[in-house]
Amino acid sequence: MVVATRHIELDTRKEGEIVDITGEVADAVRSTKLSNGTVTVFVQGSTGAVTTMEYEPGLIQDLRAALERVAPRDASYEHERRWHDGNGHSHVRASIVGPSVTIPFVDGKLVLGTWQQVVFVELDVRGRSRKLIVQAVGE
Amino acid sequence: MVVATRHIELDTRKEGEIVDITGEVADAVRSTKLSNGTVTVFVQGSTGAVTTMEYEPGLIQDLRAALERVAPRDASYEHERRWHDGNGHSHVRASIVGPSVTIPFVDGKLVLGTWQQVVFVELDVRGRSRKLIVQAVGE
Amino acid sequence: MVVATRHIELDTRKEGEIVDITGEVADAVRSTKLSNGTVTVFVQGSTGAVTTMEYEPGLIQDLRAALERVAPRDASYEHERRWHDGNGHSHVRASIVGPSVTIPFVDGKLVLGTWQQVVFVELDVRGRSRKLIVQAVGE
Repeated sequence: MVVATRHIELDTRKEGEIVDITGEVADAVRSTKLSNGTVTVFVQGSTGAVTTMEYEPGLIQDLRAALERVAPRDASYEHERRWHDGNGHSHVRASIVGPSVTIPFVDGKLVLGTWQQVVFVELDVRGRSRKLIVQAVGE
Repeated sequence: MVVATRHIELDTRKEGEIVDITGEVADAVRSTKLSNGTVTVFVQGSTGAVTTMEYEPGLIQDLRAALERVAPRDASYEHERRWHDGNGHSHVRASIVGPSVTIPFVDGKLVLGTWQQVVFVELDVRGRSRKLIVQAVGE
Repeated sequence: MVVATRHIELDTRKEGEIVDITGEVADAVRSTKLSNGTVTVFVQGSTGAVTTMEYEPGLIQDLRAALERVAPRDASYEHERRWHDGNGHSHVRASIVGPSVTIPFVDGKLVLGTWQQVVFVELDVRGRSRKLIVQAVGE
Protein backbone atom coordinates (compact mmCIF):
# COMPACT_ATOMS: atom_id res chain seq x y z
CA MET A 1 0.00 0.00 0.00
CA VAL A 2 1.43 3.32 -0.99
CA VAL A 3 0.67 6.97 -1.43
CA ALA A 4 1.71 8.64 -4.67
CA THR A 5 1.54 12.35 -5.36
CA ARG A 6 1.24 13.89 -8.79
CA HIS A 7 0.46 17.41 -9.98
CA ILE A 8 -1.57 18.94 -12.76
CA GLU A 9 -0.66 22.45 -13.81
CA LEU A 10 -2.85 24.38 -16.18
CA ASP A 11 -3.44 27.94 -17.29
CA THR A 12 -6.99 29.13 -17.66
CA ARG A 13 -7.84 32.10 -19.82
CA LYS A 14 -11.07 33.45 -18.39
CA GLU A 15 -13.85 33.16 -15.84
CA GLY A 16 -16.17 30.24 -16.37
CA GLU A 17 -13.66 28.16 -18.27
CA ILE A 18 -14.09 24.46 -17.56
CA VAL A 19 -11.13 22.19 -18.30
CA ASP A 20 -11.46 18.46 -18.89
CA ILE A 21 -8.65 16.94 -16.80
CA THR A 22 -9.77 13.31 -17.08
CA GLY A 23 -6.79 12.33 -19.21
CA GLU A 24 -4.31 13.94 -16.84
CA VAL A 25 -5.88 12.29 -13.79
CA ALA A 26 -5.94 8.89 -15.54
CA ASP A 27 -2.30 9.33 -16.58
CA ALA A 28 -1.36 10.27 -13.04
CA VAL A 29 -3.00 7.13 -11.66
CA ARG A 30 -1.36 4.99 -14.34
CA SER A 31 2.07 6.43 -13.56
CA THR A 32 1.77 5.29 -9.95
CA LYS A 33 1.51 1.62 -11.06
CA LEU A 34 -1.17 1.18 -8.40
CA SER A 35 -4.01 -1.21 -9.23
CA ASN A 36 -6.73 -0.34 -6.75
CA GLY A 37 -7.44 2.62 -4.54
CA THR A 38 -8.81 6.13 -4.52
CA VAL A 39 -7.49 9.31 -6.07
CA THR A 40 -8.24 12.77 -4.70
CA VAL A 41 -7.95 15.72 -7.07
CA PHE A 42 -7.67 18.93 -5.06
CA VAL A 43 -7.26 22.53 -6.21
CA GLN A 44 -4.99 24.81 -4.24
CA GLY A 45 -6.88 28.07 -3.96
CA SER A 46 -10.33 29.30 -3.08
CA THR A 47 -11.71 30.49 -6.43
CA GLY A 48 -11.71 27.26 -8.39
CA ALA A 49 -13.58 23.98 -8.06
CA VAL A 50 -13.27 20.33 -9.07
CA THR A 51 -16.23 18.08 -9.92
CA THR A 52 -17.45 15.67 -12.61
CA MET A 53 -19.76 16.35 -15.56
CA GLU A 54 -20.51 15.30 -19.11
CA TYR A 55 -18.02 17.53 -20.83
CA GLU A 56 -19.79 19.14 -23.77
CA PRO A 57 -20.15 22.83 -24.73
CA GLY A 58 -23.84 23.09 -23.85
CA LEU A 59 -23.40 21.94 -20.28
CA ILE A 60 -20.42 24.23 -19.78
CA GLN A 61 -22.78 27.15 -20.42
CA ASP A 62 -25.56 25.60 -18.36
CA LEU A 63 -23.36 25.07 -15.31
CA ARG A 64 -22.24 28.71 -15.50
CA ALA A 65 -25.88 29.80 -15.62
CA ALA A 66 -26.76 27.77 -12.53
CA LEU A 67 -23.82 29.19 -10.58
CA GLU A 68 -24.97 32.65 -11.61
CA ARG A 69 -28.31 31.89 -9.91
CA VAL A 70 -26.57 30.80 -6.71
CA ALA A 71 -24.12 33.70 -6.57
CA PRO A 72 -24.92 36.35 -9.19
CA ARG A 73 -22.01 38.36 -10.41
CA ASP A 74 -23.91 41.60 -9.94
CA ALA A 75 -25.11 40.96 -6.40
CA SER A 76 -23.60 42.96 -3.56
CA TYR A 77 -20.66 41.24 -1.86
CA GLU A 78 -19.10 42.10 1.48
CA HIS A 79 -15.85 40.63 0.15
CA GLU A 80 -15.91 43.33 -2.51
CA ARG A 81 -16.36 46.12 0.03
CA ARG A 82 -13.24 45.01 1.83
CA TRP A 83 -10.93 43.74 -0.88
CA HIS A 84 -12.11 45.29 -4.17
CA ASP A 85 -10.97 42.41 -6.33
CA GLY A 86 -14.35 41.81 -7.89
CA ASN A 87 -14.49 38.09 -7.16
CA GLY A 88 -16.85 37.67 -4.21
CA HIS A 89 -19.15 35.54 -6.34
CA SER A 90 -16.16 33.39 -7.39
CA HIS A 91 -15.31 32.51 -3.80
CA VAL A 92 -18.87 31.66 -2.86
CA ARG A 93 -19.38 29.44 -5.90
CA ALA A 94 -16.11 27.62 -5.17
CA SER A 95 -17.09 26.83 -1.57
CA ILE A 96 -20.43 25.38 -2.65
CA VAL A 97 -19.15 23.20 -5.51
CA GLY A 98 -16.09 22.21 -3.50
CA PRO A 99 -12.31 22.08 -3.97
CA SER A 100 -11.93 18.38 -4.66
CA VAL A 101 -13.34 15.11 -5.88
CA THR A 102 -12.34 11.62 -4.77
CA ILE A 103 -12.63 8.87 -7.38
CA PRO A 104 -12.07 5.13 -6.94
CA PHE A 105 -9.83 3.30 -9.38
CA VAL A 106 -9.87 -0.43 -10.10
CA ASP A 107 -7.28 -2.32 -12.16
CA GLY A 108 -5.54 0.99 -12.71
CA LYS A 109 -8.58 2.67 -14.23
CA LEU A 110 -10.84 5.41 -12.92
CA VAL A 111 -14.39 4.10 -12.42
CA LEU A 112 -15.98 6.98 -14.35
CA GLY A 113 -19.10 6.58 -16.45
CA THR A 114 -18.80 6.83 -20.22
CA TRP A 115 -20.15 10.38 -20.29
CA GLN A 116 -18.56 11.52 -17.05
CA GLN A 117 -15.38 13.58 -17.04
CA VAL A 118 -13.31 15.07 -14.23
CA VAL A 119 -13.23 18.84 -14.61
CA PHE A 120 -11.58 21.91 -13.16
CA VAL A 121 -13.91 24.91 -13.04
CA GLU A 122 -12.27 28.33 -13.20
CA LEU A 123 -14.47 30.60 -11.11
CA ASP A 124 -12.15 33.57 -10.69
CA VAL A 125 -12.74 36.71 -12.75
CA ARG A 126 -9.66 36.23 -14.89
CA GLY A 127 -7.49 33.40 -16.14
CA ARG A 128 -5.13 31.93 -13.57
CA SER A 129 -2.22 29.52 -13.39
CA ARG A 130 -3.66 26.62 -11.46
CA LYS A 131 -2.05 23.81 -9.54
CA LEU A 132 -4.01 20.69 -8.71
CA ILE A 133 -2.71 17.98 -6.41
CA VAL A 134 -3.52 14.42 -7.41
CA GLN A 135 -3.10 12.10 -4.44
CA ALA A 136 -3.50 8.39 -5.05
CA VAL A 137 -3.78 5.99 -2.12
CA GLY A 138 -3.85 2.32 -3.04
CA GLU A 139 -2.03 -0.91 -3.64
CA MET B 1 -3.65 -2.05 4.80
CA VAL B 2 -5.88 -3.00 1.94
CA VAL B 3 -8.28 -1.68 -0.65
CA ALA B 4 -11.61 -3.45 -1.03
CA THR B 5 -14.11 -2.74 -3.80
CA ARG B 6 -17.84 -3.37 -3.53
CA HIS B 7 -20.75 -2.35 -5.70
CA ILE B 8 -24.29 -1.18 -5.08
CA GLU B 9 -26.75 -1.64 -7.89
CA LEU B 10 -30.17 -0.08 -7.74
CA ASP B 11 -33.05 0.80 -10.03
CA THR B 12 -34.69 4.16 -9.61
CA ARG B 13 -38.20 4.78 -10.89
CA LYS B 14 -38.37 8.51 -11.44
CA GLU B 15 -36.68 11.89 -11.28
CA GLY B 16 -36.11 13.20 -7.80
CA GLU B 17 -36.12 9.79 -6.15
CA ILE B 18 -33.73 9.67 -3.21
CA VAL B 19 -32.56 6.26 -2.06
CA ASP B 20 -31.22 5.55 1.42
CA ILE B 21 -28.12 3.43 0.82
CA THR B 22 -26.74 3.57 4.36
CA GLY B 23 -27.41 -0.12 5.01
CA GLU B 24 -25.73 -1.18 1.79
CA VAL B 25 -22.67 0.99 2.45
CA ALA B 26 -22.42 -0.29 6.04
CA ASP B 27 -22.74 -3.89 4.81
CA ALA B 28 -20.07 -3.28 2.20
CA VAL B 29 -17.67 -1.97 4.83
CA ARG B 30 -18.48 -4.86 7.17
CA SER B 31 -17.84 -7.40 4.41
CA THR B 32 -14.30 -6.07 3.94
CA LYS B 33 -13.41 -7.01 7.56
CA LEU B 34 -11.55 -3.71 7.77
CA SER B 35 -11.61 -1.92 11.13
CA ASN B 36 -10.54 1.62 10.34
CA GLY B 37 -10.35 3.68 7.20
CA THR B 38 -12.41 5.67 4.75
CA VAL B 39 -15.04 4.57 2.28
CA THR B 40 -15.81 6.47 -0.92
CA VAL B 41 -19.24 5.99 -2.50
CA PHE B 42 -19.13 7.12 -6.13
CA VAL B 43 -21.83 7.10 -8.79
CA GLN B 44 -20.87 6.21 -12.34
CA GLY B 45 -22.68 8.72 -14.50
CA SER B 46 -23.30 12.42 -14.67
CA THR B 47 -27.00 12.74 -13.77
CA GLY B 48 -26.99 11.36 -10.23
CA ALA B 49 -25.43 12.48 -6.97
CA VAL B 50 -24.35 11.10 -3.60
CA THR B 51 -24.55 13.01 -0.33
CA THR B 52 -25.82 12.65 3.24
CA MET B 53 -29.12 13.84 4.75
CA GLU B 54 -31.68 13.05 7.38
CA TYR B 55 -33.75 10.63 5.36
CA GLU B 56 -37.39 11.54 5.87
CA PRO B 57 -40.15 12.30 3.33
CA GLY B 58 -40.32 16.02 4.05
CA LEU B 59 -36.67 16.66 3.36
CA ILE B 60 -36.79 14.60 0.17
CA GLN B 61 -39.28 17.12 -1.17
CA ASP B 62 -37.36 20.06 0.26
CA LEU B 63 -34.09 19.03 -1.37
CA ARG B 64 -35.88 18.72 -4.71
CA ALA B 65 -37.29 22.22 -4.28
CA ALA B 66 -33.86 23.69 -3.57
CA LEU B 67 -32.33 22.00 -6.62
CA GLU B 68 -35.20 23.41 -8.67
CA ARG B 69 -34.08 26.89 -7.55
CA VAL B 70 -30.50 26.22 -8.60
CA ALA B 71 -31.35 24.67 -11.96
CA PRO B 72 -35.05 25.00 -12.79
CA ARG B 73 -36.48 22.32 -15.00
CA ASP B 74 -38.13 24.93 -17.24
CA ALA B 75 -35.11 27.14 -17.75
CA SER B 76 -33.43 27.20 -21.15
CA TYR B 77 -30.51 24.77 -21.45
CA GLU B 78 -27.84 24.72 -24.14
CA HIS B 79 -27.52 20.98 -23.52
CA GLU B 80 -31.14 20.65 -24.63
CA ARG B 81 -30.53 22.55 -27.85
CA ARG B 82 -27.81 20.13 -28.79
CA TRP B 83 -28.95 16.78 -27.42
CA HIS B 84 -32.73 17.01 -26.93
CA ASP B 85 -32.83 14.60 -24.03
CA GLY B 86 -34.53 17.00 -21.66
CA ASN B 87 -32.06 16.61 -18.81
CA GLY B 88 -29.87 19.71 -18.86
CA HIS B 89 -31.05 20.59 -15.36
CA SER B 90 -30.21 17.06 -14.18
CA HIS B 91 -26.59 17.37 -15.26
CA VAL B 92 -26.11 20.77 -13.68
CA ARG B 93 -27.62 19.70 -10.37
CA ALA B 94 -25.40 16.60 -10.32
CA SER B 95 -22.20 18.59 -10.82
CA ILE B 96 -23.07 20.94 -7.97
CA VAL B 97 -24.09 18.31 -5.41
CA GLY B 98 -21.26 16.04 -6.52
CA PRO B 99 -20.79 12.40 -7.55
CA SER B 100 -19.42 11.03 -4.31
CA VAL B 101 -19.06 11.19 -0.57
CA THR B 102 -16.14 9.94 1.53
CA ILE B 103 -16.98 8.71 5.02
CA PRO B 104 -14.60 7.56 7.76
CA PHE B 105 -15.24 4.25 9.50
CA VAL B 106 -13.95 3.27 12.94
CA ASP B 107 -14.16 -0.22 14.47
CA GLY B 108 -15.93 -1.32 11.32
CA LYS B 109 -18.70 1.27 11.63
CA LEU B 110 -19.49 4.38 9.60
CA VAL B 111 -19.14 7.50 11.74
CA LEU B 112 -22.54 8.89 10.73
CA GLY B 113 -24.74 10.88 13.05
CA THR B 114 -27.97 9.32 14.31
CA TRP B 115 -30.10 11.28 11.86
CA GLN B 116 -27.64 11.21 8.98
CA GLN B 117 -28.02 8.76 6.13
CA VAL B 118 -26.01 8.17 2.95
CA VAL B 119 -28.22 8.77 -0.06
CA PHE B 120 -28.23 8.42 -3.80
CA VAL B 121 -30.14 11.22 -5.54
CA GLU B 122 -31.66 10.38 -8.92
CA LEU B 123 -31.54 13.60 -10.91
CA ASP B 124 -32.22 12.26 -14.40
CA VAL B 125 -35.65 12.73 -15.94
CA ARG B 126 -36.55 9.05 -15.75
CA GLY B 127 -35.69 6.05 -13.62
CA ARG B 128 -32.31 4.51 -14.31
CA SER B 129 -30.32 1.41 -13.41
CA ARG B 130 -27.54 2.80 -11.28
CA LYS B 131 -24.18 1.42 -10.33
CA LEU B 132 -22.30 2.86 -7.36
CA ILE B 133 -18.74 1.93 -6.53
CA VAL B 134 -17.94 1.57 -2.85
CA GLN B 135 -14.19 1.76 -2.32
CA ALA B 136 -12.88 1.11 1.20
CA VAL B 137 -9.28 1.91 2.07
CA GLY B 138 -8.18 0.88 5.53
CA GLU B 139 -6.68 -1.67 7.83
CA MET C 1 0.60 2.55 5.83
CA VAL C 2 -1.76 3.38 8.62
CA VAL C 3 -5.08 4.91 9.46
CA ALA C 4 -5.21 7.44 12.28
CA THR C 5 -8.39 8.88 13.74
CA ARG C 6 -8.63 12.23 15.47
CA HIS C 7 -11.59 14.34 16.57
CA ILE C 8 -12.39 18.02 16.59
CA GLU C 9 -15.03 19.17 19.04
CA LEU C 10 -16.41 22.67 18.89
CA ASP C 11 -19.38 24.65 20.15
CA THR C 12 -21.06 27.00 17.74
CA ARG C 13 -23.19 29.86 19.01
CA LYS C 14 -25.60 30.60 16.18
CA GLU C 15 -26.82 29.83 12.70
CA GLY C 16 -24.44 30.84 9.94
CA GLU C 17 -21.34 30.71 12.10
CA ILE C 18 -18.33 29.57 10.12
CA VAL C 19 -15.38 28.19 12.08
CA ASP C 20 -11.84 28.07 10.73
CA ILE C 21 -10.62 24.58 11.66
CA THR C 22 -7.45 24.61 9.56
CA GLY C 23 -5.18 24.67 12.60
CA GLU C 24 -6.97 21.76 14.25
CA VAL C 25 -6.87 19.68 11.06
CA ALA C 26 -3.18 20.46 10.53
CA ASP C 27 -2.43 19.56 14.17
CA ALA C 28 -4.37 16.33 13.80
CA VAL C 29 -2.34 15.35 10.74
CA ARG C 30 0.91 16.31 12.48
CA SER C 31 0.04 14.21 15.52
CA THR C 32 -0.28 11.10 13.35
CA LYS C 33 3.41 11.38 12.29
CA LEU C 34 2.29 10.45 8.78
CA SER C 35 4.17 12.08 5.90
CA ASN C 36 1.93 11.57 2.90
CA GLY C 37 -1.70 10.71 2.43
CA THR C 38 -5.18 12.13 2.53
CA VAL C 39 -7.23 13.42 5.43
CA THR C 40 -11.03 13.39 5.45
CA VAL C 41 -12.82 15.86 7.73
CA PHE C 42 -16.40 14.70 8.28
CA VAL C 43 -19.19 16.21 10.37
CA GLN C 44 -21.50 13.87 12.26
CA GLY C 45 -24.94 15.29 11.71
CA SER C 46 -27.11 16.58 8.91
CA THR C 47 -27.28 20.32 9.58
CA GLY C 48 -23.63 21.28 9.27
CA ALA C 49 -21.16 21.26 6.38
CA VAL C 50 -17.42 21.18 5.75
CA THR C 51 -15.70 22.93 2.85
CA THR C 52 -12.81 25.28 2.11
CA MET C 53 -12.85 29.07 1.66
CA GLU C 54 -10.78 32.19 2.14
CA TYR C 55 -11.66 32.84 5.75
CA GLU C 56 -12.46 36.52 6.06
CA PRO C 57 -15.55 38.29 7.47
CA GLY C 58 -16.87 39.49 4.13
CA LEU C 59 -17.02 36.05 2.58
CA ILE C 60 -18.65 34.59 5.68
CA GLN C 61 -21.58 36.92 5.03
CA ASP C 62 -21.48 36.30 1.28
CA LEU C 63 -21.63 32.52 1.66
CA ARG C 64 -24.64 32.87 3.96
CA ALA C 65 -26.36 35.06 1.37
CA ALA C 66 -25.79 32.49 -1.39
CA LEU C 67 -27.16 29.67 0.76
CA GLU C 68 -30.19 31.84 1.46
CA ARG C 69 -30.79 31.96 -2.31
CA VAL C 70 -30.58 28.17 -2.60
CA ALA C 71 -32.77 27.43 0.42
CA PRO C 72 -34.40 30.58 1.81
CA ARG C 73 -35.19 30.53 5.47
CA ASP C 74 -38.72 31.81 4.82
CA ALA C 75 -39.66 29.31 2.11
CA SER C 76 -42.16 26.59 2.89
CA TYR C 77 -40.58 23.31 4.01
CA GLU C 78 -42.23 19.91 4.24
CA HIS C 79 -39.74 19.06 6.97
CA GLU C 80 -41.27 21.87 9.02
CA ARG C 81 -44.78 20.58 8.56
CA ARG C 82 -43.78 17.26 10.02
CA TRP C 83 -41.17 18.09 12.62
CA HIS C 84 -41.65 21.75 13.58
CA ASP C 85 -38.02 22.35 14.40
CA GLY C 86 -37.62 25.26 12.03
CA ASN C 87 -34.53 23.95 10.27
CA GLY C 88 -35.69 22.58 6.93
CA HIS C 89 -33.47 25.09 5.14
CA SER C 90 -30.51 24.00 7.30
CA HIS C 91 -30.81 20.38 6.20
CA VAL C 92 -31.12 21.22 2.53
CA ARG C 93 -28.12 23.55 2.57
CA ALA C 94 -26.03 20.91 4.35
CA SER C 95 -26.81 18.23 1.75
CA ILE C 96 -25.80 20.53 -1.09
CA VAL C 97 -22.54 21.81 0.39
CA GLY C 98 -21.71 18.36 1.74
CA PRO C 99 -20.63 16.81 5.04
CA SER C 100 -16.94 16.41 4.34
CA VAL C 101 -13.83 17.46 2.53
CA THR C 102 -10.83 15.29 1.65
CA ILE C 103 -7.46 17.04 1.50
CA PRO C 104 -4.10 15.60 0.47
CA PHE C 105 -1.09 16.12 2.73
CA VAL C 106 2.55 15.95 1.65
CA ASP C 107 5.56 15.96 3.99
CA GLY C 108 3.11 16.21 6.86
CA LYS C 109 1.47 19.40 5.56
CA LEU C 110 -1.96 20.03 4.11
CA VAL C 111 -1.69 21.14 0.48
CA LEU C 112 -3.94 24.17 0.95
CA GLY C 113 -3.48 27.43 -0.91
CA THR C 114 -2.31 30.47 1.01
CA TRP C 115 -5.81 31.96 1.16
CA GLN C 116 -7.66 28.69 1.56
CA GLN C 117 -8.87 27.51 4.94
CA VAL C 118 -10.79 24.42 6.03
CA VAL C 119 -14.08 25.48 7.60
CA PHE C 120 -17.03 24.08 9.46
CA VAL C 121 -20.30 25.80 8.53
CA GLU C 122 -23.02 25.79 11.18
CA LEU C 123 -26.29 25.65 9.28
CA ASP C 124 -28.66 24.75 12.10
CA VAL C 125 -30.91 27.43 13.58
CA ARG C 126 -29.07 27.55 16.88
CA GLY C 127 -25.59 26.90 18.22
CA ARG C 128 -24.66 23.24 18.57
CA SER C 129 -21.94 21.11 20.09
CA ARG C 130 -20.27 19.62 17.03
CA LYS C 131 -18.07 16.60 16.58
CA LEU C 132 -15.93 16.25 13.48
CA ILE C 133 -14.03 13.10 12.64
CA VAL C 134 -10.59 13.60 11.11
CA GLN C 135 -9.47 10.41 9.39
CA ALA C 136 -5.94 10.34 8.00
CA VAL C 137 -4.85 7.54 5.68
CA GLY C 138 -1.22 7.56 4.71
CA GLU C 139 2.32 6.45 5.31
